[in-house]
Amino acid sequence: MKTQSQIKITQYRPQKGFIFGYQQLIKSRVLPYQYDVLNDRAEGAEKSHVVRNFINAANVLKGGDKGDGFYGMVFQDSDAAKWIEAAAYSLSLFPDRELEERVDGLIEIIAAAQDEDGYLNTRFTVEDREKRWTNLLEAHELYCAGHFMEAAAAYYEATGKDRLLKVMLKNADHIYDVFINKKHEGYPGHPEVELALIRLYEASGDKRCFELAEHFLNVRGVDREYYKREARARDWTVWGNNAEDMIYQQSYAPVREQSDAAGHSVRAVYLYTAMADYASRSCDEGMAAACKRLWDSIVQKRMYITGGIGSTGIGEAFTVDYDLPCDTAYCESCASVGLMMFASRMLELEPKGEYADIMENAFYNTVLAGMSLDGKRFFYVNPLEVIPGISGVAATHWHDKPQRSEWYACACCPPNIARTVSAFGKYAYGESETSCFCHLYAAGEVSFDNGAVIVCETGYPYDFTVKYSIKKGGKALAIRIPAWSGEFELLRNGRKAEFTLKDGYAYFDSVREGEEIILTLDGRAKFVYPSSKIAENTGCAAVMRGPLVYCFEGIDNEGGVLPLRIDDNGEIAVSDYDEGLLGGTVRLSVKGSRVSGTKGLYSFEKPKEEAAVLTAVPYYTWGNRGPGDMRVWLPLASK
Amino acid sequence: MKTQSQIKITQYRPQKGFIFGYQQLIKSRVLPYQYDVLNDRAEGAEKSHVVRNFINAANVLKGGDKGDGFYGMVFQDSDAAKWIEAAAYSLSLFPDRELEERVDGLIEIIAAAQDEDGYLNTRFTVEDREKRWTNLLEAHELYCAGHFMEAAAAYYEATGKDRLLKVMLKNADHIYDVFINKKHEGYPGHPEVELALIRLYEASGDKRCFELAEHFLNVRGVDREYYKREARARDWTVWGNNAEDMIYQQSYAPVREQSDAAGHSVRAVYLYTAMADYASRSCDEGMAAACKRLWDSIVQKRMYITGGIGSTGIGEAFTVDYDLPCDTAYCESCASVGLMMFASRMLELEPKGEYADIMENAFYNTVLAGMSLDGKRFFYVNPLEVIPGISGVAATHWHDKPQRSEWYACACCPPNIARTVSAFGKYAYGESETSCFCHLYAAGEVSFDNGAVIVCETGYPYDFTVKYSIKKGGKALAIRIPAWSGEFELLRNGRKAEFTLKDGYAYFDSVREGEEIILTLDGRAKFVYPSSKIAENTGCAAVMRGPLVYCFEGIDNEGGVLPLRIDDNGEIAVSDYDEGLLGGTVRLSVKGSRVSGTKGLYSFEKPKEEAAVLTAVPYYTWGNRGPGDMRVWLPLASK
Repeated sequence: MKTQSQIKITQYRPQKGFIFGYQQLIKSRVLPYQYDVLNDRAEGAEKSHVVRNFINAANVLKGGDKGDGFYGMVFQDSDAAKWIEAAAYSLSLFPDRELEERVDGLIEIIAAAQDEDGYLNTRFTVEDREKRWTNLLEAHELYCAGHFMEAAAAYYEATGKDRLLKVMLKNADHIYDVFINKKHEGYPGHPEVELALIRLYEASGDKRCFELAEHFLNVRGVDREYYKREARARDWTVWGNNAEDMIYQQSYAPVREQSDAAGHSVRAVYLYTAMADYASRSCDEGMAAACKRLWDSIVQKRMYITGGIGSTGIGEAFTVDYDLPCDTAYCESCASVGLMMFASRMLELEPKGEYADIMENAFYNTVLAGMSLDGKRFFYVNPLEVIPGISGVAATHWHDKPQRSEWYACACCPPNIARTVSAFGKYAYGESETSCFCHLYAAGEVSFDNGAVIVCETGYPYDFTVKYSIKKGGKALAIRIPAWSGEFELLRNGRKAEFTLKDGYAYFDSVREGEEIILTLDGRAKFVYPSSKIAENTGCAAVMRGPLVYCFEGIDNEGGVLPLRIDDNGEIAVSDYDEGLLGGTVRLSVKGSRVSGTKGLYSFEKPKEEAAVLTAVPYYTWGNRGPGDMRVWLPLASK
Repeated sequence: MKTQSQIKITQYRPQKGFIFGYQQLIKSRVLPYQYDVLNDRAEGAEKSHVVRNFINAANVLKGGDKGDGFYGMVFQDSDAAKWIEAAAYSLSLFPDRELEERVDGLIEIIAAAQDEDGYLNTRFTVEDREKRWTNLLEAHELYCAGHFMEAAAAYYEATGKDRLLKVMLKNADHIYDVFINKKHEGYPGHPEVELALIRLYEASGDKRCFELAEHFLNVRGVDREYYKREARARDWTVWGNNAEDMIYQQSYAPVREQSDAAGHSVRAVYLYTAMADYASRSCDEGMAAACKRLWDSIVQKRMYITGGIGSTGIGEAFTVDYDLPCDTAYCESCASVGLMMFASRMLELEPKGEYADIMENAFYNTVLAGMSLDGKRFFYVNPLEVIPGISGVAATHWHDKPQRSEWYACACCPPNIARTVSAFGKYAYGESETSCFCHLYAAGEVSFDNGAVIVCETGYPYDFTVKYSIKKGGKALAIRIPAWSGEFELLRNGRKAEFTLKDGYAYFDSVREGEEIILTLDGRAKFVYPSSKIAENTGCAAVMRGPLVYCFEGIDNEGGVLPLRIDDNGEIAVSDYDEGLLGGTVRLSVKGSRVSGTKGLYSFEKPKEEAAVLTAVPYYTWGNRGPGDMRVWLPLASK
C-alpha cells in the first residue's frame, strides 16, 4: 500500500535558494544558540538545565547524589532530542566537525543517563524513580522516548553512527517489556512514540519496534477507563490534567473509529502521522480510511488559510467545525510541523497533490512564521490578526503575542522548527523503486536509491520556474502541480512536454540522462475567499501568491490595518524582488480603501471611505519590524 | 450636587403599553414560578433549596439540628432577596393580596434565620458559624446582605411595611459593629452592599448606613494586600478565586483613582452605582470625576451596541478597550441591569441624555433579551452572534448558549430581570423640588412629590409618539430627546412647543393643568456603523429603530445568516406592527445579498452574490422560535 517513501536526508544535497538560506541560518545561528541554551550558557535565555538534568541522572545511576536535581517541564529531555535531530539533518547538509563532536558529546551524556534496564528519562531517574510509568496521562515519558528515537534514527541516517540508535533500541526493549511482556495497560498521553517507533524500526529493522507502535495504536481509546484508573491510583499530578477529557488526548474512540480531528492539536497530528505511517506499511484499510477522514476533517473544516491548526488556547486544541477565529487562534508552530508530518505520511499512502499542497502551505506560512528572520526569536502561537493592546493582553488573547519571544521555558517549538527546516529535503522528495517524486520545490541534487540523480534549480517561492536537470535517468518522474497554480507550463528539453496529469502530479514515464524539464507555475497574486461557513471571515478576502499567504501590517499601511478595506475588482500588483526587505521578499499592492473614524463607539454616520493602495507582505515575515498590528483577512470594500 | 432623584415606585401607576405587558408577565408568570423555585415546588427546575436554607438556619439558631443543611451557591440567599424586591415593585403596580401574603410569609422565615447579633446568612449560620467574615473575597456575605437591604427598602417603599426593614437595619448594625467598631480590615469581594446601604439609608434615614457605605468605598483598593492576607489566613475556599487578581474585584486602586471599567462586569457596575450614588449625595468631586471616567470607559470603549458589557466568560469580565467579540461575548443580563442602575445614578448626578440613552439601550436590548417572551426561560449570557454547532459547544463558546435555559443553579439573572422590569417606572421618572423629569417613555400616571401629576400615553418603542397630559401642573418639566432621534417634534397643546434643549432634554419652565405635550420621535430605521477600532466589526453594519437594536435570524432568512451581506445604500423598510409575531413586533427589511458556498474551505473563486431582501427582528426577541443562527452585525455588500 505504500506507494513511495521520503528520501533519506543524505540523498539530498542542497543548493542555493530560499530554503538553503534558512538551512544555513539554522546551522549558523539556531543550532549553536540552542546548544548554548541546553547547556545554560546562552545569555538572557531562560534556565534550561537540560544537559544538567542528564548529568544529574547519570550521577544518580552511579550511586551518587542528584546534584541540583531535575529542573524544567516534565518533557524537558525532549529539547535535547529535537536539537540532535535538527543537528543530524544539518550535518548531512553541511558537514561540520565541531557540531558533530558536540552531538557525539551530548549523546554520551544522554547514554550515561540510561538506566540498566534501558529506561531513559531524567525527570524520574533524578527525582522519583518509583513513579516511572504511573502517569502516562501527563508525564510524557513515552513522548520523550519518542523524540530520542527520532533523533537516533536521524543521526544514524545522517552519519551512520549508531551509538544513540543502540541506546534507543535498548530503551524500546524496555518499553516493550513494560507494555507487552508485563502488560501495562496504559497508552501515551501525548502521542509521539508511535511514529518514532516506526522510524526506529525503519532505521534498525527491529520488528519489535513496529509491533510496539502497532500495540499503542491498537489499544488507544479501547480501554476508555484507563486514564481515570491511573489518576485514581496516584496521589500526584503534573498539571492537573482532566483524566476524563478523552477528546483532549484523542482517546474518545479506538483510532480506527475516529473521524473528527479533535483535542490538543499537536498530539492529534502526531497520532495521525503514526496512523498513516502504520496504514501504509500494514495495508490496514480501516486505519487508512480513518486517516483520510481525519485529514478531511482538518483541511475541509478545521484549518486556517496559513496551514495553522488549533483554534483555541484552551487545551491548545481543535474546537469544532468552522470555528476559526483569527485573533484568538492557537496555530502552534509545532502543530503545523505535525501537520507536515501527517501530510508526508499521507503522501506515502497515496501520492495526491492535496497532501503536498497542505504540507507546503503549513511550511511556508505557519512553520516559517514561527521563527524570526534572524533565527533568534520564536512564536509558539501564530494568530492571523494581531491588535496591540488586545493581543497578548486580554484574558482571551494572552497566548497571541504581538512579538516573538527569545526562547520559551516550554521550548518545544524552536527545535521543532529547526529540525523541520533542516529536513526539508526529506519532505520535498520521495521515491519508489521505479519512480522519483518531487513533492516540493527544493533546489539541490537528489540521488535516489533507485539510481536516478536529479538536480533542481529554483528561486521558488519568489521565482515560479523550477528546472530539473537529469544527471542519471531511466526512472519515472512525478512532479507536483499545486492546486493553487491555475495555469502552468512544462517544457522538456525546450519543447512542450508530454505527460500524464493525475491527482496533482505530472507523470513522466521515464527520463533520460541529460534531459531538462522546466516547470513554470502561476506567479500571479490572487484573492482568496473563505467558505461562508467560517463566521470569522465573512465578507473578507485574503491575498496569496504561490504558496505564500500574505498579510497586512500597520507598518506598511498608514493608520494601521483596522481601517483597511480590500477591493477585489482589480489586479494585485507584484513588486520586484527586494533583497533588502525582510530577508528578501516581494510586496503586493492591492487597491482598496481606508475608512475614517466614527464619532463614538457606534454611529449612524457611515465612515468615509477613501481610496488607498494597500501593501501586503508574506505572512511568514510578519512581526519582524517591531510590534504592530497585522491582519491576514481584510473586509471587502463596500458598495 | 444631586440634581434630581428617581421617583418612588408608588408614585407610578402603569397604563397599557409595551412595558405594561412585561410587568404583567412578571406578575402572572415569573414571580409565581420563581416563588415555586425558591420553595422547590417548580416542576423540572433545578434544586433551589433557598427557603429550606432559611428554615434550617432558624432551626440551628433555636438550638435544633440543621436538617438537610445548606445547599446551593454561596449567594443562594440572594435569590429570595431579589424575588422580594421584584414582588415589592409588582405589588405597587398591581396590588395582589395573595402575593403580599407570600412575601410577608417569606419575610418571617427570613427574619427567623437572623442571629441574635443581627447576622443573617444561611450558608454560615447552617454550616460554618465560625467562618463568618473570614472570606470576603468569595463568600458573598455582604453581597447577600446588600440584596436583602434593597429588598427591605423596596418592600417598605411599596407597602409601608417595615418588618424586613427592621431586620436589615439590625443586620446593618451588626455589619457596622464588625467593620467600624471592631475594625475588620476587609471590604466586599462582590460590591452590592454599598449601593444597598445607601438605599437603606434613604428608606430609613439611618445615617450609620450611609457612613458604612462610605467606609466600604473609602477602603476599597487602599489596602491592596487585604485579600492576600485573608486567603493566607484561611484553609478553605469557595471557588479558588485568585486573591491577587485585583482587577477582577476592582481593588487595583482606590475607587477615586480608577479610570478603566475593569474586572467582573456585574461587580464593576454595582460598585460604580454606589460610587455615583455617594458622589451625588456627598458633593465629593473626586468621586464624581471617577464615576465619569468609568462611565466613559464603558460607553466609549467597552460596551456592545446592545448595551451589553463584559467581553469574556473568563471571569465574566471586561477585557480591554475595543475588544468586543460578538460570538464569545459575555454580556450578562445582570451586568446590563447594573449598567441601568449606574446610568440612573449618573442621571441623579447630572441630568444628561447620554445616561438615559444608555439606560434605555441596556433595557430594551440586553435586559429584555435575557428573558423569553413567555417569561419562562432566561439567558445569563447575551451574545451578538450565535452559530449552532459552535455556540455553547466550543470550549471558548461554552457560555454562549443558542437557547435560553429554564432556571439556573446560579440564578442571579432571572430575578434581577424581574425586579428591573417591575421597577421600570423608577428608572423612567425623576424629580426635584421644582422639576419633573421624563427619562424613559413609560405609559402611566406619575404623581410627583413636588405636586405635579402627569399622564403619559405611548405605544413606544413601536410607536414614536409620546403624549404627556398634565393633570396637575405648576412645575417645570424635562423630557428626554434621545440622541438616536435625528429629528423630533414637540407640540404643546397642538402647537409647536417652545422649549430649551440642553444635554438631551427639552425643558419647559412650567406646565399647567390641562396642558398636553406631544413628543414625536424619529421612527425611521437606520444603519449603524462601528468604530473602526473594533476589530470584530470592521466592514459591518447593524440596524436599529428607535432604541431597538435589530438582529438577523436564520429562521427569517433562507440559508442562514452567515451568507448574508447588507447593502446600506437604500432604505430600510419597516413592516406594520404584527401583533402575532414574537409577542407583537415590527420587522425590518433591508436590501442585501446572499453569497454562495465555496468549493472547499478557501477558494480563489469569489462566491456569487445574489440580491436578497434580509429580514431583521428586534434583538430582544431572538431565540424565541427554537434554536438557530443569529447575527446583529452583518458584513456590508461588496463592490
